[in-house]
Amino acid sequence: MRRILVTNDDGIYAEGLRCLAESLEELGEVWIVAPDREQSASSHAITLHRPLRVTEVDERTFAVDGTPADCVNIAVNGLLKFRPDLVASGINRGGNLGDDVTYSGTVSAAMEATLLGIPAFSISLAGRENLNYTPAGQFARRLAEIVFRHGMPSEGVFLNVNVPPVSSVSEIKGVAFTVQGRRKYGEAIVEKVDPRGRKYYWIGGDELGFEYIENSDIVMVLRRYISVTPLHLDLTHRESLRILEDWKNELEKF
Amino acid sequence: MRRILVTNDDGIYAEGLRCLAESLEELGEVWIVAPDREQSASSHAITLHRPLRVTEVDERTFAVDGTPADCVNIAVNGLLKFRPDLVASGINRGGNLGDDVTYSGTVSAAMEATLLGIPAFSISLAGRENLNYTPAGQFARRLAEIVFRHGMPSEGVFLNVNVPPVSSVSEIKGVAFTVQGRRKYGEAIVEKVDPRGRKYYWIGGDELGFEYIENSDIVMVLRRYISVTPLHLDLTHRESLRILEDWKNELEKF
Repeated sequence: MRRILVTNDDGIYAEGLRCLAESLEELGEVWIVAPDREQSASSHAITLHRPLRVTEVDERTFAVDGTPADCVNIAVNGLLKFRPDLVASGINRGGNLGDDVTYSGTVSAAMEATLLGIPAFSISLAGRENLNYTPAGQFARRLAEIVFRHGMPSEGVFLNVNVPPVSSVSEIKGVAFTVQGRRKYGEAIVEKVDPRGRKYYWIGGDELGFEYIENSDIVMVLRRYISVTPLHLDLTHRESLRILEDWKNELEKF
Repeated sequence: MRRILVTNDDGIYAEGLRCLAESLEELGEVWIVAPDREQSASSHAITLHRPLRVTEVDERTFAVDGTPADCVNIAVNGLLKFRPDLVASGINRGGNLGDDVTYSGTVSAAMEATLLGIPAFSISLAGRENLNYTPAGQFARRLAEIVFRHGMPSEGVFLNVNVPPVSSVSEIKGVAFTVQGRRKYGEAIVEKVDPRGRKYYWIGGDELGFEYIENSDIVMVLRRYISVTPLHLDLTHRESLRILEDWKNELEKF
């Protein structure tokens, strides 16, 4: 019997989480360990400075007062009495495309699973309103089946999936294996004064647009493909290593 | 006149921050925008769900009740009335080596600067006790000089620096341009019962060791080299794209 850990960053009561869990039930025993409230933009944060509380919602569902990465960490390292065969994170309300992945709580849960050596994917529905999670749920089930069959494509790699917002599967053009795209960020900070006359700042984060990168997740989702981006945790930019060699002499005189 | 933004994740009163700011003062006007308290393992989190408060400590020093990435974001997008020429984050108390970079608040500040198109480096002192920040500060000044001269090695790249814990510069063997190493994580969760009989969990995170990767940051710092790792924000694992093509037919039937 396969056992699947499901988590998210929209919180344990989110519709997308429920849809993902239900979709995967045909494939094995689904366990849910998810944040007790929304954790968007919590990134790969791990809570080290305070204890974490766990509430048992039902026999196989637990709410944690922490981030998605916390949920995976304590599920795998203590809370569950077994090692899950797969970690699935989502279905996020809103896309996790391009550079978003460095901020995303949804993606970070899959990162944490990867660090712990467990196959994982994150899945997001790239829309904002009137969302129909069913097509994404159906795709998640298919992807999980294939991951069980083939394993991850490489060691230390997980899959970040984004599904275009459609009302039925038939509107989806296909599946595209993509590279991480790049957003152009706007200067979205709001400076205001509170009722007691003190200034405050609020980070907006509305993007201005994106760089056109052929075969990027952003571009392919706009074309109504499901994007599947293989991600890893090695951020090294190897081409820069050659350039840096020219700095060596200067740099060593300090 | 060059203007440098300095931040960190140990908080505005940390010794490492003060050392970094002082070291860079010879090169230009130093502005500090840093968290008002320790933010370790805050990762690349951005605070979207609440406003941020800023306290002016002095004319060019501001404390923010947010993460390091928040500090860079509001500094660049609203608080400072100019665009800094460089963002320097640190000097962190403790290394940010290997996969640590995905959790690190110190590194996330440099990531945020990179997303905003500003040259950046993070710098950490890879020790825990009796730390002498001076050698790292001297290196930071040299590195900043060279970044002003050459720019970043590639677009979208920043530098993650780790300095071995030494009492004087003469103990340092040299500077190494490194790749991101890989830790092996232990199963470090503490399960306990609080004074009122409720269970709680505390994430440990003690590493067991590391994979031996020649020329990795972990290995070179252990050999008493300063490691300089060029990092970027594109997590795509391109080799996996070829393997995934074999999944295409199966995956499209859902």
